Amino acid sequence: MILPTGSDVLAAAERLRGVAHETAVLTSRTLDRLVGCEVFFKCENLQKTGAFKARGAANAVLSSPDDVIGCGVATHSSGNHGAALAWAASLRGVPAYVVVPDNASAFKREAIARYGAEVIHCGPALADREAMLEAVVQRTGAHVIPPYDDARIIAGQGTAALELMRQVPDLDAVWVPVGGGGMVSGAILAASAMDSQSVSVFGAEPELAGEAAVSMRTGVRQPQMPPVSIADGLRTSLGALNFRICLDYGLQITLVSEAEICAARDELMQILKLMVEPSSAVPWAAVRKSKLSGRIGIIISGGNCAVGN
Amino acid sequence: MILPTGSDVLAAAERLRGVAHETAVLTSRTLDRLVGCEVFFKCENLQKTGAFKARGAANAVLSSPDDVIGCGVATHSSGNHGAALAWAASLRGVPAYVVVPDNASAFKREAIARYGAEVIHCGPALADREAMLEAVVQRTGAHVIPPYDDARIIAGQGTAALELMRQVPDLDAVWVPVGGGGMVSGAILAASAMDSQSVSVFGAEPELAGEAAVSMRTGVRQPQMPPVSIADGLRTSLGALNFRICLDYGLQITLVSEAEICAARDELMQILKLMVEPSSAVPWAAVRKSKLSGRIGIIISGGNCAVGN
Repeated sequence: MILPTGSDVLAAAERLRGVAHETAVLTSRTLDRLVGCEVFFKCENLQKTGAFKARGAANAVLSSPDDVIGCGVATHSSGNHGAALAWAASLRGVPAYVVVPDNASAFKREAIARYGAEVIHCGPALADREAMLEAVVQRTGAHVIPPYDDARIIAGQGTAALELMRQVPDLDAVWVPVGGGGMVSGAILAASAMDSQSVSVFGAEPELAGEAAVSMRTGVRQPQMPPVSIADGLRTSLGALNFRICLDYGLQITLVSEAEICAARDELMQILKLMVEPSSAVPWAAVRKSKLSGRIGIIISGGNCAVGN
Repeated sequence: MILPTGSDVLAAAERLRGVAHETAVLTSRTLDRLVGCEVFFKCENLQKTGAFKARGAANAVLSSPDDVIGCGVATHSSGNHGAALAWAASLRGVPAYVVVPDNASAFKREAIARYGAEVIHCGPALADREAMLEAVVQRTGAHVIPPYDDARIIAGQGTAALELMRQVPDLDAVWVPVGGGGMVSGAILAASAMDSQSVSVFGAEPELAGEAAVSMRTGVRQPQMPPVSIADGLRTSLGALNFRICLDYGLQITLVSEAEICAARDELMQILKLMVEPSSAVPWAAVRKSKLSGRIGIIISGGNCAVGN
């Protein structure tokens, strides 16, 4: 197992210059008052494709030689990674094939198609998805780019935290949501690459999808829990690379309830004026109930959700 | 009647430096494709107090001598101007008194109180509001700062369009919502102050609150229509100063239906990832159905609305 490093995050940031947005950092005195510290929200919901996933997908696609991705790229995804990969493939002019389970939201499925991917339907079970992806690869020769358990993806996602640390000097900590672990492991590597300052990385996870917290506590990677949390982006368990990086770092993860996630999402929407996916509200929910001080960065991971239904 | 000028907008912009946010300008290729032109969204929903109204209120408060506002400032408002004035008063450390009709939304009433104003309740009719405001002024000696029919307010609101024109070179036009006319008349003055480029200003208004369009067509200022449009910030009729500026300019106003407003709001929320008030979606609804080309600026006026209820 070859782990990505802070240097890979720095290289990814160079690669993504002018490709991904340098997203805005927003602040709110009203929200600061609620938690008693200064909070800086990194708006990856304003990123290309509406989520930080564009960073990892673009880094993977742009760093791949022509002979690897000449026949296109493929993945299975019920959400943001599929749209991100479709968009990233268009940067190189190669086709994208995205296997989408039937239970994916229509909103996210339409986004995947809008960015130009060929959408292939399959059953909802992981075995269905993997079998269909294998069939697609056999048919097309496409190169598989997985959603989080991949060094190129981790390095790309890490550029979100890196950019935030560069935009806001003297941050004390960065809080990120934990699902498959692409963003959190990337943030850990990004922090290690900032030699001019010491920034801690903290994870936040739904109680109902809290297998990463158990994995950290036991040192054994846990399987996915039943996919019931409203934070649909965080239902997956940590990837192997992601788990290793988090365990080596000694990542601390704060768990939040579904009610705390909903309240946090409403606060961000009403006060910060941003559309946020439930998954994106999880770190704010965690900061909200922690006793913190100093300057805290939070990554708003995405904003892809339907309105009014 | 002494009308404000482009110079007043330039002076207001100097006064607001470091006080109001220089708000972000967002773009979306997906939205561009829907209208066949390049659109630049000026995010005044990310402004202090969640709306452009902070600009006018701050300009009025900061340009007033101590002996005028020493006893505080007052207005009647069911919405964003009340919160903006409360915030602006805090910049000078003077009290704010906001007369709020009983039918105002709880969401906006709470915001007015949160920014530190004394909230005085009254009946919903305009006569009730004016009588109560008069009583408050008698009691406190506060200086009244009206929501739009005021040269200081117009100059302050104009800084939103000015800032957009400075952020995005070579804009062909700026589209803004029309209610009382603070923003649109300010934008007209701002465009007149840009001697390096020629930018047209266009208004957009709900059909169900379309009295400004009739005022322009007839040359006679029309009274307010029944307050039924979902775009609650645009129900008022043009102020006297605002009407004069718009008429002298020959402002063209495009009317949009309630269905078009709702569809436009959902598009902005889902694709631009921003919380937008219905009023803020009106210019996008107008651009959506117009055949335009070139580089179009749109001011997203505010984002103060409740979520999930």
